[in-house]
Amino acid sequence: MSGRILVVDDVPTNRVLLKAKLSTAYYDVQTAETGEEALEIIQKEQPDMVLLDVIMPRLDGFTVCEMLKKDPETAHIPVVMMTALDQPEQRIRGLEAGADDFLFKPVDDLTLFARVRNLMRMKIMFDELRLRDATSRELGLHNFVEEHVEDLDDSGTVMLAASSTDECSAWRDVLDQRLNVDLIEADGTRTAMDCPASSVPDAYVIQRDLMDGSDGLRLISSLRARPETRQAAIIFVTDRDDLKLAASALDLGASDYILSPFDPNELCVRIRSQLRRKKYSDRLRSNVIDGLKMAVIDPLTGLYNRRYAMQHMTTIMERSASEGTEFSILMLDLDNFKQVNDRYGHDAGDAVLQEFARRLQSSVRGIDLVARLGGEEFCVALPATDLESAAFVAERVRTSIHGEPFCRPNSTDTIPVTVSIGVSVGQGPGDTPDVVVRQADHALYVAKNNGRNKISIFAEAA
Amino acid sequence: MSGRILVVDDVPTNRVLLKAKLSTAYYDVQTAETGEEALEIIQKEQPDMVLLDVIMPRLDGFTVCEMLKKDPETAHIPVVMMTALDQPEQRIRGLEAGADDFLFKPVDDLTLFARVRNLMRMKIMFDELRLRDATSRELGLHNFVEEHVEDLDDSGTVMLAASSTDECSAWRDVLDQRLNVDLIEADGTRTAMDCPASSVPDAYVIQRDLMDGSDGLRLISSLRARPETRQAAIIFVTDRDDLKLAASALDLGASDYILSPFDPNELCVRIRSQLRRKKYSDRLRSNVIDGLKMAVIDPLTGLYNRRYAMQHMTTIMERSASEGTEFSILMLDLDNFKQVNDRYGHDAGDAVLQEFARRLQSSVRGIDLVARLGGEEFCVALPATDLESAAFVAERVRTSIHGEPFCRPNSTDTIPVTVSIGVSVGQGPGDTPDVVVRQADHALYVAKNNGRNKISIFAEAA
Repeated sequence: MSGRILVVDDVPTNRVLLKAKLSTAYYDVQTAETGEEALEIIQKEQPDMVLLDVIMPRLDGFTVCEMLKKDPETAHIPVVMMTALDQPEQRIRGLEAGADDFLFKPVDDLTLFARVRNLMRMKIMFDELRLRDATSRELGLHNFVEEHVEDLDDSGTVMLAASSTDECSAWRDVLDQRLNVDLIEADGTRTAMDCPASSVPDAYVIQRDLMDGSDGLRLISSLRARPETRQAAIIFVTDRDDLKLAASALDLGASDYILSPFDPNELCVRIRSQLRRKKYSDRLRSNVIDGLKMAVIDPLTGLYNRRYAMQHMTTIMERSASEGTEFSILMLDLDNFKQVNDRYGHDAGDAVLQEFARRLQSSVRGIDLVARLGGEEFCVALPATDLESAAFVAERVRTSIHGEPFCRPNSTDTIPVTVSIGVSVGQGPGDTPDVVVRQADHALYVAKNNGRNKISIFAEAA
Repeated sequence: MSGRILVVDDVPTNRVLLKAKLSTAYYDVQTAETGEEALEIIQKEQPDMVLLDVIMPRLDGFTVCEMLKKDPETAHIPVVMMTALDQPEQRIRGLEAGADDFLFKPVDDLTLFARVRNLMRMKIMFDELRLRDATSRELGLHNFVEEHVEDLDDSGTVMLAASSTDECSAWRDVLDQRLNVDLIEADGTRTAMDCPASSVPDAYVIQRDLMDGSDGLRLISSLRARPETRQAAIIFVTDRDDLKLAASALDLGASDYILSPFDPNELCVRIRSQLRRKKYSDRLRSNVIDGLKMAVIDPLTGLYNRRYAMQHMTTIMERSASEGTEFSILMLDLDNFKQVNDRYGHDAGDAVLQEFARRLQSSVRGIDLVARLGGEEFCVALPATDLESAAFVAERVRTSIHGEPFCRPNSTDTIPVTVSIGVSVGQGPGDTPDVVVRQADHALYVAKNNGRNKISIFAEAA
């Protein structure tokens, strides 16, 4: 777990010292003397992490950090600020500027290395997520232009696992007043881990000795080992004189720690910043999933597309075969749709297709698959449905389209629309989706020939 | 970096000892007495790692490991085998069964923990990749059913960074005879890192002291810090009495290590297994990218779809505006395509669309964007192209379609096909893709009205 670290300090001894320390642990270290130089190197070299002195001539550390966090190209690079002054206001200002941590000089090795390892791990995971996100953005699959972590909403659910009821109420008071979060309490590892997978908290605040006698570090470890809670934010609370514990917590996967007794504002800033970070990574994850879903969705109507329909019908068919049930297919084609486009324009045509999709979807069950195969052609796959029921559904669809004329957009005119529907059923092992679709297609052809606005059922003899 | 570990050993003392050790480091540990019990627990609990004794009654460790690696549900879980007998054949057999490492009892803590940390890190990354892969598989975006890592091809490029030319030739001899890999040599960190980003090796074999005086551990660190080589396999070669170095290498991100002097077969097995693993993770990564690409590709013709075309045209337009160049759009519509479908069937219609796409694509430049907008409607966006050149291209396309009749599939018949094309140009800042597309669409309408198989150029007055 190595990486490239930039050390920024205007005092030469500090630079040399930190560089030597980090190099011994096999990190690749670069140094910068001023904020300006730092910004330039970061833009060009994109290091994996920045150790940033607070007090420097001209551009101070706070300003450099803010500038880094505002630039989408560098916002994801972790920043650890360093200062000789241990003042809560300074720390809070640094965290609010977007720093990941705030260390005091002379920097304690144990905490430094634990923090560096922890941030490197996080960085590698983010890089992996960002890479995929960049691909889907390049392909135009979403417009989520690299948002600032700072702009994300910091609400969420926070679980408090403190060492006493007094401590817990003190935390609760602090957080209730200052944050927009829901709070849950846990008296120990068992209660905390008992949370159902569907509603795990976004963040945890955890002390070493929990009320039920269990060990807070073990709770961190268990949360990280469980897939549902692996991505949650975890803030470890420990005594000012026990930095070793804080380092262990970071190595076990805690996102951050705070030394007790703490300034209430500092706890809030840390929680808020972790909640935002959690949201950012959740967003990156869901962007990719959304991108993948777009490959199977018809953008105009929001229905599934042909690719997904054919895939899904195979699944329906296999399930039918194994359960010995029938499944039915409707093939639908809007009548004389070309005339709608020619007469009212493409916008009106699109609006008709959208309204048709809405009516079609609301005429079938949730388990039925509705897809647009292309142009004005649609299909519905009905699992566990015999021919008679399918014909009934088809007739209901036909009536819902024919029964009420469609609105012409930006106009009080209406557009008369009708649909022809072919129905077929799959019953045996030979009835692959392909075969049943062709049969429904054939029935659709008959419905069209019979004068349109008709349903037709595929019969073997036909 | 915690996780759930299953310890499998038939000797109670061994189980208790290992469980105590690992629990102290905050891992969640379960134990099993027999291979059968282990398989049951693994199926049910899906631990993050298995420590597996070799010699057990009935099902021995080799068999259990093979069974785990054959089952797609458990193949991704890392396995470390343990034995009291230090025999190369045993080690090779274990690695060939799919084990990630082979440790000797009594297990050395340093090596054990370094290996556990290393495998946990790898497991978390794989879990992340597998999750995304599972989504795209569920959506039917690819059929890459969870392949066995063991079935993947183990060819590739391997870079050798040894401590002397003698050592290097010895490795070369061993690998040349036994593996299907290309070998490159590096005399140290600088040469190894000099490799161009486009052709980085799949795997590296690295010793501590390199020929140019640089440190092999630093090379590992630098390889892991560089995005292009972050995913490469790295095997560290170190002396039998220097386990501490091996542990450092694993912590720095080496994929595996081997103790020198080694059995040539063992080196080969380890390289082969790392090459396969690298290919597996590459495959998982590219599956997601491929899945995302499918969201912008028309499955029938392989051309870009409407979603991508509109997005891409915006980019072309913005570039034109900033460079002060023109861009042109062709809108194309096959003439009387409905008759092709009606007369020859949908299969013939699809074949015509595919052949049309091929001819269209080969009539334009590589930088031109060709897309199928839906049905029989296509478009081409031509960056840095004025109206006259665009009209020339349109005429070339028209001729290439009209000039040679299309083949009817499974038949010697041909199908006459023609296309109508509308041409327009965007020149000013007001010419958004939307506007220019509408103009080309209008020109297309004129071409159709003029009797089809025509090109028509949009004129402001029209």
